Amino acid sequence: MKEGIKIVTIGGGSSYTPELMEGFIKRYEELPIREIWLVDIEEGSKKLKIVGELAQRMWNATSYKVKVYTTLNRREALKDADFVTTQFRVGLLDARVKDERIPLRHGMLGQETNGAGGIFKAFRTIPVMKEIVADMRELCPDAWLINFTNPSGIITETVIKHFGWKKCIGLCNIPIISMMSELEVLHKKAEELDFQFFGLNHFHWHKTFDKRGNDLTHELIEHINEKGVGTPANIYRADFPIELHHTMNLLPCAYHSYYYMQKEMLEHCLQEFREGGTRAEQMKEVEESLFALYKNTDLSKKPEELSKRGGAYYSDAACECISAIYNDKKIHMVVSTENKGAIPCLATDSVVEVSSIISARGAQPLAWGKLRSGQKGWLQIMKAMEECTIEAALTGNYGLALEAFTMNPLIESGWGAREVLDELLIAHEKYLPQFKEKIQELKKKGKKLTDSVVINLM
Amino acid sequence: MKEGIKIVTIGGGSSYTPELMEGFIKRYEELPIREIWLVDIEEGSKKLKIVGELAQRMWNATSYKVKVYTTLNRREALKDADFVTTQFRVGLLDARVKDERIPLRHGMLGQETNGAGGIFKAFRTIPVMKEIVADMRELCPDAWLINFTNPSGIITETVIKHFGWKKCIGLCNIPIISMMSELEVLHKKAEELDFQFFGLNHFHWHKTFDKRGNDLTHELIEHINEKGVGTPANIYRADFPIELHHTMNLLPCAYHSYYYMQKEMLEHCLQEFREGGTRAEQMKEVEESLFALYKNTDLSKKPEELSKRGGAYYSDAACECISAIYNDKKIHMVVSTENKGAIPCLATDSVVEVSSIISARGAQPLAWGKLRSGQKGWLQIMKAMEECTIEAALTGNYGLALEAFTMNPLIESGWGAREVLDELLIAHEKYLPQFKEKIQELKKKGKKLTDSVVINLM
Amino acid sequence: MKEGIKIVTIGGGSSYTPELMEGFIKRYEELPIREIWLVDIEEGSKKLKIVGELAQRMWNATSYKVKVYTTLNRREALKDADFVTTQFRVGLLDARVKDERIPLRHGMLGQETNGAGGIFKAFRTIPVMKEIVADMRELCPDAWLINFTNPSGIITETVIKHFGWKKCIGLCNIPIISMMSELEVLHKKAEELDFQFFGLNHFHWHKTFDKRGNDLTHELIEHINEKGVGTPANIYRADFPIELHHTMNLLPCAYHSYYYMQKEMLEHCLQEFREGGTRAEQMKEVEESLFALYKNTDLSKKPEELSKRGGAYYSDAACECISAIYNDKKIHMVVSTENKGAIPCLATDSVVEVSSIISARGAQPLAWGKLRSGQKGWLQIMKAMEECTIEAALTGNYGLALEAFTMNPLIESGWGAREVLDELLIAHEKYLPQFKEKIQELKKKGKKLTDSVVINLM
Amino acid sequence: MKEGIKIVTIGGGSSYTPELMEGFIKRYEELPIREIWLVDIEEGSKKLKIVGELAQRMWNATSYKVKVYTTLNRREALKDADFVTTQFRVGLLDARVKDERIPLRHGMLGQETNGAGGIFKAFRTIPVMKEIVADMRELCPDAWLINFTNPSGIITETVIKHFGWKKCIGLCNIPIISMMSELEVLHKKAEELDFQFFGLNHFHWHKTFDKRGNDLTHELIEHINEKGVGTPANIYRADFPIELHHTMNLLPCAYHSYYYMQKEMLEHCLQEFREGGTRAEQMKEVEESLFALYKNTDLSKKPEELSKRGGAYYSDAACECISAIYNDKKIHMVVSTENKGAIPCLATDSVVEVSSIISARGAQPLAWGKLRSGQKGWLQIMKAMEECTIEAALTGNYGLALEAFTMNPLIESGWGAREVLDELLIAHEKYLPQFKEKIQELKKKGKKLTDSVVINLM
Repeated sequence: MKEGIKIVTIGGGSSYTPELMEGFIKRYEELPIREIWLVDIEEGSKKLKIVGELAQRMWNATSYKVKVYTTLNRREALKDADFVTTQFRVGLLDARVKDERIPLRHGMLGQETNGAGGIFKAFRTIPVMKEIVADMRELCPDAWLINFTNPSGIITETVIKHFGWKKCIGLCNIPIISMMSELEVLHKKAEELDFQFFGLNHFHWHKTFDKRGNDLTHELIEHINEKGVGTPANIYRADFPIELHHTMNLLPCAYHSYYYMQKEMLEHCLQEFREGGTRAEQMKEVEESLFALYKNTDLSKKPEELSKRGGAYYSDAACECISAIYNDKKIHMVVSTENKGAIPCLATDSVVEVSSIISARGAQPLAWGKLRSGQKGWLQIMKAMEECTIEAALTGNYGLALEAFTMNPLIESGWGAREVLDELLIAHEKYLPQFKEKIQELKKKGKKLTDSVVINLM
Repeated sequence: MKEGIKIVTIGGGSSYTPELMEGFIKRYEELPIREIWLVDIEEGSKKLKIVGELAQRMWNATSYKVKVYTTLNRREALKDADFVTTQFRVGLLDARVKDERIPLRHGMLGQETNGAGGIFKAFRTIPVMKEIVADMRELCPDAWLINFTNPSGIITETVIKHFGWKKCIGLCNIPIISMMSELEVLHKKAEELDFQFFGLNHFHWHKTFDKRGNDLTHELIEHINEKGVGTPANIYRADFPIELHHTMNLLPCAYHSYYYMQKEMLEHCLQEFREGGTRAEQMKEVEESLFALYKNTDLSKKPEELSKRGGAYYSDAACECISAIYNDKKIHMVVSTENKGAIPCLATDSVVEVSSIISARGAQPLAWGKLRSGQKGWLQIMKAMEECTIEAALTGNYGLALEAFTMNPLIESGWGAREVLDELLIAHEKYLPQFKEKIQELKKKGKKLTDSVVINLM
Repeated sequence: MKEGIKIVTIGGGSSYTPELMEGFIKRYEELPIREIWLVDIEEGSKKLKIVGELAQRMWNATSYKVKVYTTLNRREALKDADFVTTQFRVGLLDARVKDERIPLRHGMLGQETNGAGGIFKAFRTIPVMKEIVADMRELCPDAWLINFTNPSGIITETVIKHFGWKKCIGLCNIPIISMMSELEVLHKKAEELDFQFFGLNHFHWHKTFDKRGNDLTHELIEHINEKGVGTPANIYRADFPIELHHTMNLLPCAYHSYYYMQKEMLEHCLQEFREGGTRAEQMKEVEESLFALYKNTDLSKKPEELSKRGGAYYSDAACECISAIYNDKKIHMVVSTENKGAIPCLATDSVVEVSSIISARGAQPLAWGKLRSGQKGWLQIMKAMEECTIEAALTGNYGLALEAFTMNPLIESGWGAREVLDELLIAHEKYLPQFKEKIQELKKKGKKLTDSVVINLM
Repeated sequence: MKEGIKIVTIGGGSSYTPELMEGFIKRYEELPIREIWLVDIEEGSKKLKIVGELAQRMWNATSYKVKVYTTLNRREALKDADFVTTQFRVGLLDARVKDERIPLRHGMLGQETNGAGGIFKAFRTIPVMKEIVADMRELCPDAWLINFTNPSGIITETVIKHFGWKKCIGLCNIPIISMMSELEVLHKKAEELDFQFFGLNHFHWHKTFDKRGNDLTHELIEHINEKGVGTPANIYRADFPIELHHTMNLLPCAYHSYYYMQKEMLEHCLQEFREGGTRAEQMKEVEESLFALYKNTDLSKKPEELSKRGGAYYSDAACECISAIYNDKKIHMVVSTENKGAIPCLATDSVVEVSSIISARGAQPLAWGKLRSGQKGWLQIMKAMEECTIEAALTGNYGLALEAFTMNPLIESGWGAREVLDELLIAHEKYLPQFKEKIQELKKKGKKLTDSVVINLM
């Protein structure tokens, strides 16, 4: 890092990249970047060019001399990198469309990071992540990997536990959104509240305190059903029964609504679907309009419109995390990292999403202690489901994939679940080399996508 | 026990009692009983009289001089008892009708020991069990408590862990039915196969071996969908996908179908309900016809018809367990007992249902060892749900009851689940002293049973 | 805390009190104290008066209007306290003389916080601490208890786990001394190094890092045998074999020499003893000369001589900890606090001494993760020995006291150990109400202190 | 096993072999052996011939046609074996002499399976056991390995956990001796008492019950210091303080005297040493006189004199264990086997010595449950010490060897312990290929055996 930091962003053609640039520009004085490499694949090359040019214009509009490179050659980019961020989406938004529509057609939740969709996003991402880590081991063995490809917890566990890359931190914007909305509800500034989070990615709880150490959780639960409390712009949230939360004395995360209010959330998704849209399709439109803006060669800052996407703050979190490592800041962040006992009812080598201190040594989780039965049981089945998912993704074992589906609380088990599994395997065939044999077998047996899915997607 | 054993059966007016008598008669030479006390409550006094007279006739038809007493005075019966068996049903079959019909009316599973029904059966039973244990502490402090009141695992955990009565063993007929059906499938005799079970009551898996130690599990999985394999006469079972089980390399229990085949099982229950019946109502008919038989003063043995009820073998298991304790037999039985590490991913003081050696010291569980993720996660959430249920039952905390409902994999979470909870609280008011305050509050707010339920039930 | 903070120091007559005053004076701007209460017992009243007057002179020499009260009435002092610090020594230095001399006469280690002496210091302190916590519950239920009475870890565990007072933090100067000596060895400033500690009080290891996250542990091990590295002025330390520490890749604490270099440490203690002195006796002399200085009414600051005692930095650590709580500082300190999973091989509710973040909520331990076998086994037997000690101290069970002695790695087990146990019981009779019955029994059997001990001590 | 069982005994030239033959002869009707292969190494060939001929004479004296083969070719013997027993001693009794004398010369315990000697016996045995398992994998992949080479627990853990050979059971005669002596003390027959053991090899406790389940432990503790209770003929045992055991409410094993009565046991060993003998040297004499008897071609049964050696019952236990596996007996035996949760405070994959059910599937441990602090801490440090020992034995890491020495409660830590370590390394050079490099380094530095050891041993 002698002459400045080299940052590599895999999936650099993403519409989020301008936020990342903004975050780095804001922190340049403390985080002296030399060059930024945006990497993408052939299918994303057009977007990559547009975003890359905007990124360079953003830096040119400052007094900092940072060079933005775009490339389809990942290995060229990774050489001597200091920090690698991953924000790629295998199969692009088209894959998300399938993850959402296929389960929904069978009356099940179709969602990007939960249920069947989340499992398949892991199945597609893990083989690619394996190659990235292999490249890093060779080309930048001391680099930090900051992952925000979803399902972020599962991917981070795979990288740390199975690929053995310990210098990896997983990020998510959900905790940030919770904290910001609570500041608003209580009319407080960031420095007036403290938070402690524990759980898994998209499945965590927290408590909120004032600067005298008083627990404000009970008070905040009273506001839990107010619009916007803890929920990102892009997810619907059914109202929670307040007694449940008062008994827990914990604040849930936005995604808990899928588990605590299963019926309402499923109905809402199905209605959206019947009305012709899913999140992926809405996102596609958003993306198109964003790229239309990005093309404008007069634009040299992040357009306001980007903040409205669900992923807001993600990239800023990444920049802050990188700076905290580089500057040994020892600040509190909520990240996916190795458990190490912080949640004693999970294995020490599992990845969890918890309040951690970020320093030059990475993330050090704060120990939470013994959990109530209510949190313990949920976390344990979710982690076990993640383990089955990862093992299936690594081995291509069909029975394990079915087991992950069966355990997942958002997939109604039975023959219908198996049907969804089979259709998703066929639909994503191109990105699932590990399941090749099983997919061939399914196709030989005449398994096809149900017609309307074929029409809509292919 | 100097001059023979004193047995007390609480819920002695049950239609199962003749099976219990048969079991004791068969074992009299090894289990020298002096007297048997059948205890019941006022509402059951008519049945108690009929069953008690049949029981005495059964003994009179032998050469053994055993006296059968019937009483509504539990304390009189418990005095100096050696073994107490519990087979009572708080609220009788009418309560079961409500446990089944109320959830079903909301499109959820209505079942006696799983889902909402199972939770409420625990809510009703635990306060009564508390009194029984208090009486035993005073009147027969050295007695063994053999429980087969359902939900057997939850009740046994409450007795051992919360009421501190260590000399308690919980029984269930499901493991026996599994073992017997596998003998049939493989055309083997009991002495030709070995079994090892682990899990929770109504939620366990097992492996089957021959006498050379060869694992026959894989072979038996091939037969898993044959009619009758492992499933008692009284439950429907949807077919399992065989790949799931081959990956597990474990044999499931009958009740796993509710969890693994949720959609099919729910649909079947709803259809039965729409066709006008639930299990409870079928049971009522069975009971009536059994009591009609029992009344016949010429009858002095267990009628064949009793074996057709779902609970077959339950009572025989109880007799065998009592004899194994009395005679220090050191035989293998599958019972609910303190974990002690046998299932390492659950607390040592949780109650589990596992292969155990039954001796004069009670049940000693065989250690199973580390579980696969697939079993671990399920057992952990089920146990956590049981813990919330027990704590709610002991404290009357409404939020905890809601939490148990929310975690239960067979209850679709959301406002509908809460509605079912509220209706069940009101429906069972009489048997839920711990929830008295909450029920008053609900009633004040105008919460009622939906009309048709009221009509059917009250 | 409206009009300034009320601090209460139990054992306020200690010679360390001037350091405590200095620490509070230094921090007055951030820690606005209103009044300080120094509490002691009748036997210490003379010292209390001297120290109290010096303390008041120290404040008077500043511009801050803080009133120092001295009292023998603990309850009067505790009323509405914000922070209570405990630094009392039951039986004063005379008791320490016995803790050291009695084992030494039997050829065993005689030491204040390790071995037989440490166990007896716990036996004497726990009954008094129980009364203090009972008073606090009544008189200042929101106060923080900052304990530095030794054995600090055992006392803190008793307060938190057995007396249920969660707002308690245990302090020790050993980690501070380690950190300061390493700064010196590496010619670094405090802000240039990071540390992470884990273990138990007087039995912890740590790693040291630079601000880039590089692990300097291996380098520091090379200096491990240099005079002064990590060892307080008042303890001798035998050289360590360097290979052992390179294999561990951890830095030990000063007290590890008793366990790793048992033979050399014991020999050194025995030699000191034969030459006529023990630490306690040296301390008595130091104390006398300190109090001679304190009496001087011209003195209005902490005399230099105090820094030379072993306990240096203890009191400053207490002041910093109090300020970190009051100001929600979120700084790193090494304290005794509830484990909560930070050391996964110990129970979550055990007290451990680990790197923690100190905030308004108290200490939050950083999770360390899975330990090597070498650390795991040591910590587990030490904690088990502490548990036996605490249980014996709470119940007065002689067998448990003997078990603690037998497990303690610094007590050679056998009949000699029992002899030492018996003599210590008799010698400390006055302070051991819980063992009253056993002591009577021993005395009836004619058990006496061996003559020379009697002569020296009584 | 079609035409009878093939047994292979590695270390077949041992003086214990006649007991093994007797055990097999006694059980021939239930255990139809075809052939027995006694394997030994060149140095033992003379003994092997003598023992082999006696063994054949023993079978010839029966009506059973069993052929006894003797060979120095292990691979020839292992081909298609059904059961392999290991009773070899690397370095023969000469190595034991060194294990005992070298520590004793430094004033430390010199003992075959505890302290420094036990660690070195593991160091020498593990490389050989690795080769045996490699051969078995190739030549008899379905065979059971019944180990009674000491330290039996450490060797069994290495075979199961590190070499992955699951069909391995470790045996020891200490539990049998305990049980037999208690029968004698209470004037009972074997079928009148039950036992439950838990712990590690040479470090276990147990409870004893009558056939009504009454705990007789308290009563037996009263007899604990009677000559012969629980202690084999070949170990001295200092008296225990009875209060310690009543508090535990557990019966210790003979080897606990080394840990509980450290001073007395060490003194006794040192005195024996000063008087010119160690166990090894006594054993050498015993062996010589036994082989003198064995040579007698008129002898065709086990001579009485063999029973007087410490190892009595060892071989009979091996025969019974083999028969229990072959016949799926499901009997209670105390064996070293994978923990699987039976002792919850140790890892599930550690090897423990516990009451188990022996069947065709091998050993299934009975779960003991939560331990008292007193047992927990001891077992945890002993297991951690075993883990360091095994890792050092597998890797040849000197620091780890030193760590095992430092943790071992029977080795006084310090520079003297390191001296003993170094001398033992040099003394056993021939059998420690894994430490070759370190030994060269030590020799280069001029490290030698102290003179008298050299004289006595070489």
